[in-house]
Amino acid sequence: MTNQQCNTSRIAGVQFTLYPMSDNFVDIILSALDEVDQSKVWKETDDVTTCVRGKIVHIFDVTKAIFLHAAKTGEHVAMTGTYSIGCPGDNEADVYMAESDAPANAPQLANAPQRAGCKFAIHPLGREDYMDKIYEQIDLSKARGVDVSAAHYMTRLDGDVQAIFDAMEDAFEAVQQEVSHTTMTFTISANSPSNQ
Amino acid sequence: MTNQQCNTSRIAGVQFTLYPMSDNFVDIILSALDEVDQSKVWKETDDVTTCVRGKIVHIFDVTKAIFLHAAKTGEHVAMTGTYSIGCPGDNEADVYMAESDAPANAPQLANAPQRAGCKFAIHPLGREDYMDKIYEQIDLSKARGVDVSAAHYMTRLDGDVQAIFDAMEDAFEAVQQEVSHTTMTFTISANSPSNQ
Repeated sequence: MTNQQCNTSRIAGVQFTLYPMSDNFVDIILSALDEVDQSKVWKETDDVTTCVRGKIVHIFDVTKAIFLHAAKTGEHVAMTGTYSIGCPGDNEADVYMAESDAPANAPQLANAPQRAGCKFAIHPLGREDYMDKIYEQIDLSKARGVDVSAAHYMTRLDGDVQAIFDAMEDAFEAVQQEVSHTTMTFTISANSPSNQ
Repeated sequence: MTNQQCNTSRIAGVQFTLYPMSDNFVDIILSALDEVDQSKVWKETDDVTTCVRGKIVHIFDVTKAIFLHAAKTGEHVAMTGTYSIGCPGDNEADVYMAESDAPANAPQLANAPQRAGCKFAIHPLGREDYMDKIYEQIDLSKARGVDVSAAHYMTRLDGDVQAIFDAMEDAFEAVQQEVSHTTMTFTISANSPSNQ
């Protein structure tokens, strides 16, 4: 029964960290966490990363919202993480799969423009045709509001933070429909002095 | 001929970023880069990540050294990145494969103790038996000086920075001998106020 629940629910998760390049990093992190509604995800934090788990829509909603709240301080902030779905044995916290699909933080993010640069790579596991699955499923030409370019081992996205997270969510969503165990690693950076 | 050279050389690389949680982040990053010998790797930096490529021994030597130099400032610093080998088409910069195997920064790191916490995950691509390859090839029980624990989607390592990077290098080296295209993502953190 447990396996059946797990197989139908397809719980996803992300291990991520927020990095404010500021002496005020503790306040910036705590403020961002305080302002973001995380009621629809399972959560665990330690000194290295934070893990949130639940429906795909909510793990992207929460990471996007935390990054945006931190970036609006104007400080140079970055976030890195690895999204994962279908990891063998990942079924704890399935209760969060009963949440509605409405992203909890979408309303307050509606008018939060913020530019950023991001690099991400998607890793479909357990498939000999993994490169085909990447090319078939990801169509970044449809991603609105982001510039797409190539980097070693990664794809670079530049544009509005919400458009960047939406493009990554679309890619992750599309590949995981074809490949049971999929991971996606990303690094996103805003307010870098390199761009001023 | 180009392909043959690529196939025999097995160039590896890493996209990484150093994050000092300090107003002095620019100085800390530039000082670390200045003190580390990067002559044995190909390098490219932009506002989001730095990419270094070459022999496995050198990409680990350089990332370890940069992290240690930044951590010795006493500030809370973190580094994240993704190592990769066997990515289809990755053969530019093969000239760096002619470098000797001696890690350029080992002498100056000989007496640089520094504790850290790290989470990493290895992703062998293109193999249906990827989980077997992970379990078969990685024996962290032999990793000296690090405590190993489980985390969602990741393995956690705690201990001395050099022992942590050595354990990750051993795992990456072992898996890539069996699986042509392998990636490994990691997050390492030192001097976190959460531990004080």
